[in-house]
Amino acid sequence: MSEKRTLGAMRCPGFEWRGVFGPLEWCGMLLGLGCIIVVAEKAGPVRSAQGPETVAQHGFDDCPRLDMLLVPGGFGTRTEVDNPAMLDFLRRRVPETEVAMTVCTGTSLFAKAGLLDGHRATTNKMFFQWVSDQGPKVNWVRAARWVEDGRFATSSGVSAGLDMSLAVISRLYGAETAKNLSIAAEYDWHRDADWDPFAKIHGLV
Amino acid sequence: MSEKRTLGAMRCPGFEWRGVFGPLEWCGMLLGLGCIIVVAEKAGPVRSAQGPETVAQHGFDDCPRLDMLLVPGGFGTRTEVDNPAMLDFLRRRVPETEVAMTVCTGTSLFAKAGLLDGHRATTNKMFFQWVSDQGPKVNWVRAARWVEDGRFATSSGVSAGLDMSLAVISRLYGAETAKNLSIAAEYDWHRDADWDPFAKIHGLV
Repeated sequence: MSEKRTLGAMRCPGFEWRGVFGPLEWCGMLLGLGCIIVVAEKAGPVRSAQGPETVAQHGFDDCPRLDMLLVPGGFGTRTEVDNPAMLDFLRRRVPETEVAMTVCTGTSLFAKAGLLDGHRATTNKMFFQWVSDQGPKVNWVRAARWVEDGRFATSSGVSAGLDMSLAVISRLYGAETAKNLSIAAEYDWHRDADWDPFAKIHGLV
Repeated sequence: MSEKRTLGAMRCPGFEWRGVFGPLEWCGMLLGLGCIIVVAEKAGPVRSAQGPETVAQHGFDDCPRLDMLLVPGGFGTRTEVDNPAMLDFLRRRVPETEVAMTVCTGTSLFAKAGLLDGHRATTNKMFFQWVSDQGPKVNWVRAARWVEDGRFATSSGVSAGLDMSLAVISRLYGAETAKNLSIAAEYDWHRDADWDPFAKIHGLV
């Protein structure tokens, strides 16, 4: 696959801003990426968990082929796990991707769609039980900043998405590129996927 | 002042997503905050540095009174420092606020408007020279994750906005509240405003 990739950033009502914008910023800073498109069930403005709206350029029906997909968390996932249009879109499109990423409770959507069955994955530690209930055949990792398994990269709570996406960028575009992005943003990058003090805080280990 | 505050999040074309969405997420998680509104020169969709748009609910002309203001960085600031409408808005509205925050190169706008004259302030270390040139009467701090001085809180590169806004929340709403937000987001909060390895990387100290 060429260096130019198309990244789809999923929106559903009540999405978490930082879960999607943090990782996207790394990608947006990567000149080699190609393009970023925002996709939701229907094109147009989508309300975030914090109120203000962003604009989805494509709906599920007219979304172009995606090389990468990023699904954020947020309370919207509580209803989206029961949205057949969402699950159908993920089941059709995720197998076409090179990398499929989730942040925080966004992992629940891949799990409910059955995409993670037999794969290792993690999610937000505060809502670990609810998310893991969505995918009983997933090999859930209780303590991890993020987990990479095949095309999947799933991360812990919203801030962990920053570390996960830098790890993915490091794999696809090289460690030096990822390091330069973290320095430009003055970000204290956690490079160790096993670093997870929050699993203990939330009683998971 | 009551616990309920109105926070205005500034947008200008080419704003940096994470500079505004990270800090706003903390604020959005604070039930006591009141409300968050997005303001730009004109209401409607505003293009970000990374492409996709968000929606400004208010223009400069119809923006309600703001208790807090947050100005992100991004390449858009390079032209906005010469935008009389932006500088006029900041000169009229910042003195009404309880807290006025900037992230990354957003500090250039407060500096150019003369609002920071005689105050201590910091900014992104990679673009420190350009930003500090916008305000020769500012007491620029070359090594700091963020700086609080009076109503002003200015932060270093985009990731530093997360630490700065938690510090502000800690001051306004209590340390326990800020700590709980950082745990919920699984964020490794830098509580020390003097922690700044990036100043050295960029040759400022």
